[in-house]
Amino acid sequence: MATLRQTVAELGALGADRRSGAAEIADRAAALLEAFCRGQRARDPQLPYALSALAEATLAAHPAMAPLLNLANRIQLAAEADGRALLALRRLLAGYRRERQQAAKAIARRFARHLPRRATALTYSYSSTVLAALAAARSRLARVIVSEGRPGYEGRVVAERLARMRIGVTLVIDAALSEQVEAADLVVVGADAVLARAYVNKVGTRQLQEQARARRKPFYILADTSKFLPAGLAGFHRLEAAPGGELWRDAPAGVVVLNRSFESIPFERGVTLLTERGALTPAEVRARLERQPVARRWPRLRQGGQTNGSGRR
Amino acid sequence: MATLRQTVAELGALGADRRSGAAEIADRAAALLEAFCRGQRARDPQLPYALSALAEATLAAHPAMAPLLNLANRIQLAAEADGRALLALRRLLAGYRRERQQAAKAIARRFARHLPRRATALTYSYSSTVLAALAAARSRLARVIVSEGRPGYEGRVVAERLARMRIGVTLVIDAALSEQVEAADLVVVGADAVLARAYVNKVGTRQLQEQARARRKPFYILADTSKFLPAGLAGFHRLEAAPGGELWRDAPAGVVVLNRSFESIPFERGVTLLTERGALTPAEVRARLERQPVARRWPRLRQGGQTNGSGRR
Repeated sequence: MATLRQTVAELGALGADRRSGAAEIADRAAALLEAFCRGQRARDPQLPYALSALAEATLAAHPAMAPLLNLANRIQLAAEADGRALLALRRLLAGYRRERQQAAKAIARRFARHLPRRATALTYSYSSTVLAALAAARSRLARVIVSEGRPGYEGRVVAERLARMRIGVTLVIDAALSEQVEAADLVVVGADAVLARAYVNKVGTRQLQEQARARRKPFYILADTSKFLPAGLAGFHRLEAAPGGELWRDAPAGVVVLNRSFESIPFERGVTLLTERGALTPAEVRARLERQPVARRWPRLRQGGQTNGSGRR
Repeated sequence: MATLRQTVAELGALGADRRSGAAEIADRAAALLEAFCRGQRARDPQLPYALSALAEATLAAHPAMAPLLNLANRIQLAAEADGRALLALRRLLAGYRRERQQAAKAIARRFARHLPRRATALTYSYSSTVLAALAAARSRLARVIVSEGRPGYEGRVVAERLARMRIGVTLVIDAALSEQVEAADLVVVGADAVLARAYVNKVGTRQLQEQARARRKPFYILADTSKFLPAGLAGFHRLEAAPGGELWRDAPAGVVVLNRSFESIPFERGVTLLTERGALTPAEVRARLERQPVARRWPRLRQGGQTNGSGRR
């Protein structure tokens, strides 16, 4: 059994994880929320307020990662389900986890069909969706090219996992990854968020996409629909910089260390967004985003100009 | 006084320095050679053979760096100056050092004229020529953007030196540098070699040049003519990869660490090559390259397919 205070603290602590992918962090948040639910009474009149607090903590943990914003939205939707909040949340959480697992498998299956035999794939940064897809496509892969992923070195994690599956890996410095597009048959990346006209991923992805276009190599974004960020939530979406100390702990005075983690990349011709529902065009993405329900409380919160007291934004 | 054996060993040791710029390493090689000269007798009949050995050691130390190949060429030209080898070498070495210093100053003066007031410059990797130019242009600089420079972190060295001169510095990860071109007024890089149709610099430079072109930002290559590599020496020029262990010491089995340091970048429209003789067009570069004398021994060595026994190539 987890108290409200504990759960808020644990959700906040997820913000310090800068190596895991967006989907993984959202899965951990869902598990924390399920643990919270176990100790609650359905008829507790305080429950909607508690859920609103949990929704805000989830919203604030990693404001660049859409799955967390979507999870926060689900919690708040449950809080707004008069008298049935706990039941609604349990159902939403169970649904969330099941959907995620099925989505990852469906994307992996679809991705494998796009691979030529003995393919050399190039990937950047860490995405659990991409790793699952590469694992499933193992028999068609000759080699995967990946870069270090400064400052967190999450590219080494990718390299290690792939090597354990006996997939050949070439690891290069981040600055050399674009040049390696030439040697690859295709480029595949994950996403932290999918918006109406762009997607969000680690800084450097845009460069890679441009390089792939210039060299006419297929470019895939693998993202399940939990990454889709409806306009009503987009106002909470922040591409904030991480602490500079992660990059250079003892930087001399006069040196500003700018540790930007994310960037927004426009959907461009030749780029394929692969979801559990197949490849979606930007128009189809927009149609889906418009249909997604958004909790009543969010627009009011945005007008108030404040979502929480953690000071992280 | 330094023996032949010592000097060959010391020249070889320069190959392990992967943080200093090409011009700096060549300066150190010239100093080692001057020390060797001090202990020699002009009439020693062995001298030409000794100089050939020194030329080969210089050629092999950093085969991507043109100043070292040019220095090796000068040593070999001296060895081929019948009966006057020592005098010829002393003159060539003294000339080399003087030319280098004057060239760096001339380039710095010319570069400063290209800078707008309160300019934000972006640079990549470490170049002593670029550092000297930025130092001389201090009063016109608002800020310099630089990246870490994995794996050697030579970008931190640049940041530190600039900060000491009270020039504002922003340091980002290598993958974010291209994106920062937007925030800069101009991009400036050094070069390890200048060839007939391309120049050589750290991997990642080509990407930066493409980004600068796309955003219509001026792009400068600062390189004195000691970086110019005549066709007769180009056969010794190698863009070999550095040891993978520098990138990831305990990489798991199955992961090939490809630590490429250099790449060749074509001269393109909108790119300015600034030398001590002013901005040169590719046609002017080619004309100069054709005029540079090359020692008689090199073509023979190349036919033999071997330049030394150090096993580095």
